[in-house]
Amino acid sequence: MLLRLQAGLQDPQLESILALCKDLGLTTSFLEGRRDLVQVDGPADPRILVRLEGHPLVRNVIDRGDVRWQVDADPDRAETVVTAGHARFGGGWVSIAAGPCAVEDEARMTAIARDVKERGATLLRGGAYKPRTSPYAFQGLGEVGLEILARVKADVGIGIVTEVMDTRDVDKVAAVADMVQVGARNMANYPLLRELAKCGRPVMLKRGFGATVSEFLGAAEYLLEGGNPNVVLCERGVRGFDSVTRDMLDVGAIAHLETATHLPVIGDPSHAAGRADLVPNLARAALAAGADGLMVEVHDAPEEARSDAGQALSMARFGALVERSRALAELLGKRVAVCPSSSEDNADRIGMEFA
Amino acid sequence: MLLRLQAGLQDPQLESILALCKDLGLTTSFLEGRRDLVQVDGPADPRILVRLEGHPLVRNVIDRGDVRWQVDADPDRAETVVTAGHARFGGGWVSIAAGPCAVEDEARMTAIARDVKERGATLLRGGAYKPRTSPYAFQGLGEVGLEILARVKADVGIGIVTEVMDTRDVDKVAAVADMVQVGARNMANYPLLRELAKCGRPVMLKRGFGATVSEFLGAAEYLLEGGNPNVVLCERGVRGFDSVTRDMLDVGAIAHLETATHLPVIGDPSHAAGRADLVPNLARAALAAGADGLMVEVHDAPEEARSDAGQALSMARFGALVERSRALAELLGKRVAVCPSSSEDNADRIGMEFA
Amino acid sequence: MLLRLQAGLQDPQLESILALCKDLGLTTSFLEGRRDLVQVDGPADPRILVRLEGHPLVRNVIDRGDVRWQVDADPDRAETVVTAGHARFGGGWVSIAAGPCAVEDEARMTAIARDVKERGATLLRGGAYKPRTSPYAFQGLGEVGLEILARVKADVGIGIVTEVMDTRDVDKVAAVADMVQVGARNMANYPLLRELAKCGRPVMLKRGFGATVSEFLGAAEYLLEGGNPNVVLCERGVRGFDSVTRDMLDVGAIAHLETATHLPVIGDPSHAAGRADLVPNLARAALAAGADGLMVEVHDAPEEARSDAGQALSMARFGALVERSRALAELLGKRVAVCPSSSEDNADRIGMEFA
Amino acid sequence: MLLRLQAGLQDPQLESILALCKDLGLTTSFLEGRRDLVQVDGPADPRILVRLEGHPLVRNVIDRGDVRWQVDADPDRAETVVTAGHARFGGGWVSIAAGPCAVEDEARMTAIARDVKERGATLLRGGAYKPRTSPYAFQGLGEVGLEILARVKADVGIGIVTEVMDTRDVDKVAAVADMVQVGARNMANYPLLRELAKCGRPVMLKRGFGATVSEFLGAAEYLLEGGNPNVVLCERGVRGFDSVTRDMLDVGAIAHLETATHLPVIGDPSHAAGRADLVPNLARAALAAGADGLMVEVHDAPEEARSDAGQALSMARFGALVERSRALAELLGKRVAVCPSSSEDNADRIGMEFA
Repeated sequence: MLLRLQAGLQDPQLESILALCKDLGLTTSFLEGRRDLVQVDGPADPRILVRLEGHPLVRNVIDRGDVRWQVDADPDRAETVVTAGHARFGGGWVSIAAGPCAVEDEARMTAIARDVKERGATLLRGGAYKPRTSPYAFQGLGEVGLEILARVKADVGIGIVTEVMDTRDVDKVAAVADMVQVGARNMANYPLLRELAKCGRPVMLKRGFGATVSEFLGAAEYLLEGGNPNVVLCERGVRGFDSVTRDMLDVGAIAHLETATHLPVIGDPSHAAGRADLVPNLARAALAAGADGLMVEVHDAPEEARSDAGQALSMARFGALVERSRALAELLGKRVAVCPSSSEDNADRIGMEFA
Repeated sequence: MLLRLQAGLQDPQLESILALCKDLGLTTSFLEGRRDLVQVDGPADPRILVRLEGHPLVRNVIDRGDVRWQVDADPDRAETVVTAGHARFGGGWVSIAAGPCAVEDEARMTAIARDVKERGATLLRGGAYKPRTSPYAFQGLGEVGLEILARVKADVGIGIVTEVMDTRDVDKVAAVADMVQVGARNMANYPLLRELAKCGRPVMLKRGFGATVSEFLGAAEYLLEGGNPNVVLCERGVRGFDSVTRDMLDVGAIAHLETATHLPVIGDPSHAAGRADLVPNLARAALAAGADGLMVEVHDAPEEARSDAGQALSMARFGALVERSRALAELLGKRVAVCPSSSEDNADRIGMEFA
Repeated sequence: MLLRLQAGLQDPQLESILALCKDLGLTTSFLEGRRDLVQVDGPADPRILVRLEGHPLVRNVIDRGDVRWQVDADPDRAETVVTAGHARFGGGWVSIAAGPCAVEDEARMTAIARDVKERGATLLRGGAYKPRTSPYAFQGLGEVGLEILARVKADVGIGIVTEVMDTRDVDKVAAVADMVQVGARNMANYPLLRELAKCGRPVMLKRGFGATVSEFLGAAEYLLEGGNPNVVLCERGVRGFDSVTRDMLDVGAIAHLETATHLPVIGDPSHAAGRADLVPNLARAALAAGADGLMVEVHDAPEEARSDAGQALSMARFGALVERSRALAELLGKRVAVCPSSSEDNADRIGMEFA
Repeated sequence: MLLRLQAGLQDPQLESILALCKDLGLTTSFLEGRRDLVQVDGPADPRILVRLEGHPLVRNVIDRGDVRWQVDADPDRAETVVTAGHARFGGGWVSIAAGPCAVEDEARMTAIARDVKERGATLLRGGAYKPRTSPYAFQGLGEVGLEILARVKADVGIGIVTEVMDTRDVDKVAAVADMVQVGARNMANYPLLRELAKCGRPVMLKRGFGATVSEFLGAAEYLLEGGNPNVVLCERGVRGFDSVTRDMLDVGAIAHLETATHLPVIGDPSHAAGRADLVPNLARAALAAGADGLMVEVHDAPEEARSDAGQALSMARFGALVERSRALAELLGKRVAVCPSSSEDNADRIGMEFA
C-alpha cells in the first residue's frame, strides 16, 4: 500500500504511524525525499486497509496494493450467478421478478402469481412487511402475508422474493422466501445484513436512495463477509432534484457495477419512475446499461392496489415488457430465465448451462 | 378535505371512490361543474387522509381540512421541551451534546466526559454500537461500551445519548441512555421506531442523509403515534453534489421545522462538515437558523480516535464553541442549559423554569 | 383555468385579483362555497398563465385549461423531425453525432471526420469555442476553429454541430454549422437563445446539469417562441451525489420527454459518464429509454486529446457502438440515419420518407 | 508538483509525458521504484498545472507544489475588501444589498430605495434585465430600467447592484451600476466573465445552483485573471432533493470559502428559501457561517411584485433583519457598513478604516 500522510506532521506523529504499522505486522519505508508518502507492505487484509484509511494522520491511501473486497470483480473468476427458484441472475442470465407492492389477499395474490409466471416472471414479489413513510398507511399483513406467500408459492410454483425489515423476522421470512429482499431504507441496516449473511437464502439488496455506490458495495460486503455469497444488487433510483420521476434510475451505476463487481445487478424501474407509463422505457434502459434482471411492480387491477398504485403495470403491459426484454437480452447476448410451465419440459432448459 | 381526482374518470370509477368514502364514514359532494373536485367531510383522521392520498384515482389532496399529524406545530399549544439529564431542548432552551464518535476505553471516556461537562455540554455522546460502511471497520464495543457509559454516567454526572441500531438492543440501550439516538441510516427503520416509541426514553432522531423533510417528520410521527412524546429532531446534513463538505447542513430545513413542528430541532455540524475546521461556523449557522441545540464530536486526542477522527474538535476548540454558542443563544433570546457542577448550586438554575 | 388562491385573503385582495383578471380579458367565478378556488375563462394565452402562476396571491394553478406551450406534445400533430445535413432526429429516425471535444488541427479533424462518417456518424461534433472551468485551460481555436470546420465539412461531406457561447458569435457559427449547439452551461442563457431563435439553423440544446426538466423545456420554448422550430433536446447528465460517473444520465427525463414534447431528444453518454469505458452502455441506455440520437466524443488518439480525453472513445469502439445502436434502433422500430458514401446511392435512402 | 500517472503505462507513453514536461520547461524524476509517481519541477504556472491535470495519461496531481490560483487565500496578504458605493464587503465589513427582484416603475423604485437605505442597506438591488424560465414571463424593462436605476441612484444616494446577461450590454450596465451582478444561470458564461473582467466595476458573482465550489472559484478566477480584482462571491442556494425550500443555502460552502479564498463571500437567503418567512433565519445562518454580507429581496408591497413575489420581505421585516444582522455581526467581531444619512456625519464613519 502507498499512504499519503497529512502535510507537515511532526516527528512524534510520524513515529506513531510507523509504530501502528509495525503493530499491524507491516513494514514501512518513506519514498525518497518525501515525508508524506509511505510505502507499506505486509498482509493484504482489508481490516488493515480500513484502519489506515480512517487514521487521522493519513490523508488518503493512494494505492491499496493487493487488498481486495469480496465483492470486487476478479479477472480470474467467473461472474457470480445467483439462483432462486427458477430465477437466475448473472453470467448471461436475466430474470424478472414481478408482483404487487404488498400482499393483499390470497385469491388475488394467487391470480397475480399465475399471471406473472405465465407472462415470464420467475419470481413473485410482494411485501408482507411494508416500510411506509407514514404510520397511518397500510403496513402489510405481516405473518399472515407470509403465510399467504407460502401457499401461493406451493400452489403456483413460482419462487418468492419478499422484504424483511427487522432482525427478529429474518427466520420467519427466510422460511418462506426463495430470495430475501433488503429494501432501500434498510440498505445500511447492518445488524439486519449480519443476520441475512447467515440466513441460508439469496439476498436482493436494494441500493439506498441516498447511498453512494461505494456504500452500496460496502453493504454487500457485509453479506459476503458474513458468509452469504448469493447477493443480487438492485438499483432502484436515487434522490435527484427533478420531479418528473420520483427518483433517478442511475444507469451509470449499473454500468459501473457490471465492471466493478462479480455480483449480478438488476434494475427496479417501478420505484425509480414512480409512474407506470415510464416503466417500460426504464426497464429497457436498465437492461441496456447492463442489468442482469428486473424487479417490476404489477397489479391485476392497479386502481385497486393498496399501496404504490400509480406505478404498477397492468398485466397486459407487463407481458409486453417481458417480450421486449427477451428481444433486448438476446441482442445483448443474454437470455431471460423462465419458469417451466406444466405443459413444457422447460425444467431441462433451466437446468442447462448458459453457453 | 378537498380531493382532486384523476382526469377523465369513468362513472364506475367515480362510484368506487364515492363508495370508499362512504365506507370510511365520509360524506362527499362534487364542486359545481367539476367531475374532478370532491369535497369530503367527516372525521379528521390521518388514516383516512393517507388512504385517500394514496388512492390511484386521486390525483392529490388539495386541502386536508382539519387533519393534523401529531408532529404538526399547533398555535394553541406550547413548543415541546424535551428533557434528558440536565439537557433541555426547545421552548427557549438550547443544549449541547458532545463526545467522541465511539466509546473506546473507560479511562478516556471518563476524562472526556468530565471535560465536556466542564466546558458546557449537558449530554455525553458516544457510540457503543457503530454503523460503519465497511464490515472491516471498528464496529463499537457493544455491550461492553454500554457498561462503560453506565459507569461514566455514574462517575461524572452527565447524561448519556447513544445510538441503537437493532430492535433487539432497545432495552439494553434504554437502560443506560438518558436519550436514545436513531442514526441517519436508521431514520426509516420503522420497526426500530416502533420499539423506541415504547422505550420510556427521549429519542434523538437524526434525519437520513437522503430523506426529505416530509419523510423525517413521518419518522417522528411513528414515535409520537406510538406513545413517545419526547423526540428531538437532528439535522445532520444531506447528500449534495459538492465535496468541500461531506454532506450539506440543511439550514433551510432547520428554519422550516421551527415553524412546522412543535418538536425541538438540533444541528449536528460535525457529520455535516466531515472536517473539524468548519464545525464552529456550521454550529453557529445551525443555531442562527433556529436550532435548539447541537450535537458535536469532540475528542481529547483527535489524532488517536478510532473513527471519524478528522471531524472531531479538540477540547479547547469545543470550549470556544460553547462560549460562542452561549453568546449567540442569548442574542436570539434563548439560553444554553448547563450541568450543575459540584461547586455550584446550578441544580437550582436547571430546575428553574425558563422565563 | 382553475386557480387556487392563498388562504385567508381579505376582500380587497380578492378584488385586486379579480380586477387583474378583468384587465387581462378574463371572466371569473368562484367555485361554490370556496373563497380560494376561482374558475377563470378567456383566451388560452401562455402570457396570462405565467402572469397568474407568478402572482403572489395565487397559490397555484390547479388546471391550466387550454393553455399550451409550443414545446408540448400534441396528439393532433406528428413528432417534429429535425434535419441537419444527413442527420435526422425524431419521427422514427435516430442520428449519431461524433467527434472530438475540441477542434485541434485541420489534418486530424479531417481524418476524424472521414472516420466517423465511415463508421456511421451523420454529424461531426467539435468545439471551436470551448467553455472551460479554468481560465488557464485550452479555450478552443475560436474563428480559426470555425474555418477548419468549414473546410472539413466541404472536404468530407459531413454536417457540423458546434457550440456557440456568445451572442456576438451567433452569425459566425451559424455560417458554418449545420446545427448550432447550446452547451449545458448556457441552457439558461436567454439572450443567446433569443439570437438562436433567429439564426436560421437547427439548434441542439443541452440540458443544464443543474436544470429541471421544466426549465429545460422553458429554454426550448424560447427558441420555438422566437421562431425556430428545429430544436433537438440533449440530455447529458445531471449533478448527482455519487462519483462513479461524472454526472448522472437522466434516462427518466428522456423517457418523460418522449411523452411530453414533440421535439426529438438525444443522449450524450460521454459527458454523463466522464469515462470512456461506460459510454457504450450508457449510449444503449439512452436509446432504450427512447432517445432519438446520440452525441458521442470520439478521438483518433484519445491519449493526445487536449480536453476531456478520458471520456473519448477510440474509433474502433465508436464503430462497435454504431453497430450496436443500429441493432437496438431496429429492435425499437427506429432507424439510424447515415451519410451517403461516395460508393453508394445512400442519398436516395436518406431522402426516403421513414415509414 | 507530484503527478500520479495512469497504471500500467508503456514506455512510449511514459516518454510522451516526459517529453511534454520538457517542452513545458519542467524537469522530471520518478520516485524510487514507482513508474506511476513523477516529481515535476519548474515554473509555478497554473497553465502548466491545468495542462497536466487534464492529460489523459495523468491520473491525478497529488501535490500541486507552489502553483496558486489568484483566488486562493494567502496567509501573506490581507483579505480583499470590495467597495461599491458605501458598501464594503470583507476584511471585517458586512454590507447588505436590498431591493426588489426587478425594476418596475420609477416612483416605486425611488420609494423602495429611500426606505432600504434608511433601514440600513448600502446597495439597492433590482434587475433591468431578468432571466426568466419562461419566455412569456416579464423580462425586465431593459434600458428603460437602467435609466430608472441611474435616476434613483442620483436622487437617493445609494449604490446600485444590477444584473447583466449579455456581453453586448456590459458597457451599458457598467455605466449605471456600482456593482455588476452575474446571475446564477450565468456563472459559467465565460465570455460574459471575460467582458466583466475589463468593465471597471466590482462584480457580484452568484454561484450557479448546480455548480461545485471548485467551479465557482474557477469562474471568479476568470475575473481576476482578466484584470478585475473586485469580486464578491454570492452563495444563493444549490439544487437539492427537498422542496421545503426552493434551493439549499450551502452554509458549508460559505464556511469553506472563508478559509479558501481572500475574496469576500455573501449569502442570498431570498433565492435560497424562495419564501419570505424563512429569509430572516437564513440570513442569520449565512452571517453565522461567515458571510461578509447579504443580498435580500425586499418590496414595499410584496403582493404587487411582478416577479419572485413570494420571497420578498416587507420593509418592516427587512428593518428587523438589518437590526439583528448588526447585533450578530458585532458578536462575530464584524461591522455592518451604512450609507451616510444627510442628518449625520456617517461619511466619516464609512471612510474610517476597520480596526
